[in-house]
Amino acid sequence: MQDVKVGVIGLGNVGSGTLTILAENGEQIAAKLGFRLRVTAVCSRSVAEKQIPAALGNVQRFTDWRDVVNSPGVDIVAELVGGTGAAREIVEAAIATGKSVVTANKELMALEGAGIWDRAIQAGINLAMEASVAGGIPIHTVLREGISGDRITALYGILNGTSNFILTEIEKRASDFADVLAEAQRLGYAEADPSADIDGFDARSKLALLAALAFGERITPSDIYTEGIRRISPVDFQYAHKLGHTIRLVCAARATREGLLLSVRPALIPLSTILASVQGAYNAVWVRGHYGADTFYYGRGAGPHPTGVAVVSDLMRVAREIRSGSPGRVSPFAHEELAEYKPIPITLQTRAWYLRFRVKDRPGIIATLAGILAEKRVSLDAVLQLPSETKTDLPFVITLEPTNEASVREALEKMSALDFLTEPPLALPMETAL
Amino acid sequence: MQDVKVGVIGLGNVGSGTLTILAENGEQIAAKLGFRLRVTAVCSRSVAEKQIPAALGNVQRFTDWRDVVNSPGVDIVAELVGGTGAAREIVEAAIATGKSVVTANKELMALEGAGIWDRAIQAGINLAMEASVAGGIPIHTVLREGISGDRITALYGILNGTSNFILTEIEKRASDFADVLAEAQRLGYAEADPSADIDGFDARSKLALLAALAFGERITPSDIYTEGIRRISPVDFQYAHKLGHTIRLVCAARATREGLLLSVRPALIPLSTILASVQGAYNAVWVRGHYGADTFYYGRGAGPHPTGVAVVSDLMRVAREIRSGSPGRVSPFAHEELAEYKPIPITLQTRAWYLRFRVKDRPGIIATLAGILAEKRVSLDAVLQLPSETKTDLPFVITLEPTNEASVREALEKMSALDFLTEPPLALPMETAL
Repeated sequence: MQDVKVGVIGLGNVGSGTLTILAENGEQIAAKLGFRLRVTAVCSRSVAEKQIPAALGNVQRFTDWRDVVNSPGVDIVAELVGGTGAAREIVEAAIATGKSVVTANKELMALEGAGIWDRAIQAGINLAMEASVAGGIPIHTVLREGISGDRITALYGILNGTSNFILTEIEKRASDFADVLAEAQRLGYAEADPSADIDGFDARSKLALLAALAFGERITPSDIYTEGIRRISPVDFQYAHKLGHTIRLVCAARATREGLLLSVRPALIPLSTILASVQGAYNAVWVRGHYGADTFYYGRGAGPHPTGVAVVSDLMRVAREIRSGSPGRVSPFAHEELAEYKPIPITLQTRAWYLRFRVKDRPGIIATLAGILAEKRVSLDAVLQLPSETKTDLPFVITLEPTNEASVREALEKMSALDFLTEPPLALPMETAL
Repeated sequence: MQDVKVGVIGLGNVGSGTLTILAENGEQIAAKLGFRLRVTAVCSRSVAEKQIPAALGNVQRFTDWRDVVNSPGVDIVAELVGGTGAAREIVEAAIATGKSVVTANKELMALEGAGIWDRAIQAGINLAMEASVAGGIPIHTVLREGISGDRITALYGILNGTSNFILTEIEKRASDFADVLAEAQRLGYAEADPSADIDGFDARSKLALLAALAFGERITPSDIYTEGIRRISPVDFQYAHKLGHTIRLVCAARATREGLLLSVRPALIPLSTILASVQGAYNAVWVRGHYGADTFYYGRGAGPHPTGVAVVSDLMRVAREIRSGSPGRVSPFAHEELAEYKPIPITLQTRAWYLRFRVKDRPGIIATLAGILAEKRVSLDAVLQLPSETKTDLPFVITLEPTNEASVREALEKMSALDFLTEPPLALPMETAL
């Protein structure tokens, strides 16, 4: 059968990983497909400096992406530029010229995926985005196809490798957040400006995409309640362990009677749950289905080769469709049409809570805090205090029985005026049902 | 768009789970597909006694499967009978009449899948088998599509829920194998004749299918080295824990220079590996890819609803193909053609080893055993002996440095004549690289 021809735009980490796999693994890929995937064009602003694997044979090199998109020798455009600037133009132009698109772009697809997909359907082209979330885990394929017969009731993810690396380092080494972040930056695991990772915005885009796949709703990332990990300290892990839990940046999507409840925030999860075993830069997704019960998926979150596998697997899927002659049936989502998402305030949810205080120690503190909780009709579960060296910045923890988040916030608001607190209380939900 | 019509043959656990999902989840399924999956016919020898969900509407009931296969009102036949008798006839007949087939049948597909698929290709029909292995885990979809761009180097699975339940009960409760088996039978987790589960034959069929998917070879189950769990006792878990390991019935497929090495056997796996967290009747698959590194998939191994999700997801995939008008492109395997598998003797492999002895205690035992190991040029790693109440049936353990399995067997053979042994030594490989 005839080759299917691929143009790769963007030769950074993911682009070069993709080319390596297409070059080195070409025979295996052809054995699976029954025809060849051939890279005919690549594009990068600095294409002259890029190493293109010799095994790819004759590849045209361009500095202007329009040359790839307009090339008659390209069937599928792999958009591996990232971001929402040029990437948007590339994807739109490829669709307009009737070329299928494989993208690794979480920001673009989270922000505009539904609209892009509409245009792809109209143009009769294929659109795939497995590499956009949790590069090493084929979670799109799983949600779109593998368990498509199920009705998903909850999805929990650890979707940002950098923050998971930082949290598990704090946990293992009892080092402060700032020190671990600095080391992660030295090692290249965290960016010079780490905000997208540690403040949860990267994870938020990924959750928006996975939730759209799992629940069939069109989710705007900024509608997702998001909180980062800057306030997590070694003492929080000590208390969490004491409670049989650990702490992770949890991306959660849960079907409730009110609708879909979405959040990205640090949370306590039981040490006994398989999600608690996710260490370092790994990613994982835990899915609860109404029929299939719980399933769990784990792998590398990023990296040129793991993400390259996702891009190449998408290219294979799209190439099969092109060779079969059926127009535009590879879709990025599981549903034929996405419904509108009606955001639900996170304050509606009821959870058990972990409240960590730091205080200048003096008599009556517990009584004061317990009084405020009682006033807000919040039931205290336990008070924990580990041995501490200091009396002027003493950490201790109160856990709460399952309580509506609105009530917790009211209590915290009232507590914020207390002069014995050395910093505002830290409140983390406890995901005990995992 | 027009409905796609399904005939379900076999109304046992999986069949009834499938009907429940198709009935209750019909709206969601239609929202995903853009058309309806409609059950038009069911078949069971005792169909009169079966509850058919009213929400399915008008469903024809048959006692002879030929009536389903020959019905013009059926597009896809779901073969949920199991076994290799009637099931084979059903699948063959469905293919012959040009109907697509979804099957949950691991024995049939492991024994004859490649040949059946050949005929399916010639007939231009779709053939899918997600439910045949690890019902609750969409591992077929993952291997066939999600990570198809990778080159898989190893696959490890926990694929038999009954034996995993028994092993983890022995581990938790320190009860003997026979007691735990009896209880599992009482609870309905194990069959009256438990051999298929505890002697590894069920797992072997499943490994044959997953390895065919992962490595593109046509594997006959009886070519797989298989050993069951009957000899595992509480003391083995005590020693394994002491060594930082646990014991599971491990299905392994590894690409080696000599070819594909396949085995189903109890093995020590590190407690730190995520595979060690698989408890009770759960299944899991751990895959190492040359590019994607390690990924891990976890869920229910069986059960009407988890397996029903797999069947329904396959029906959806096949229905999409039928509606798109492209003939027979849903294939059960990842490769266009399966290569022949050349069996490799398991004795070629090199592993660290756990050897457990039971002896009538007397001086010189370690010296004798160490002498035999030295004679066979096998390096001893450690000798472990936990406190024991008995001197007449004393268990202790010797671990070996990585050693060729052939040498270990020679040493064990030589040891078998020793009169201080109360039973033959138990040798388990240690999968330390997991």
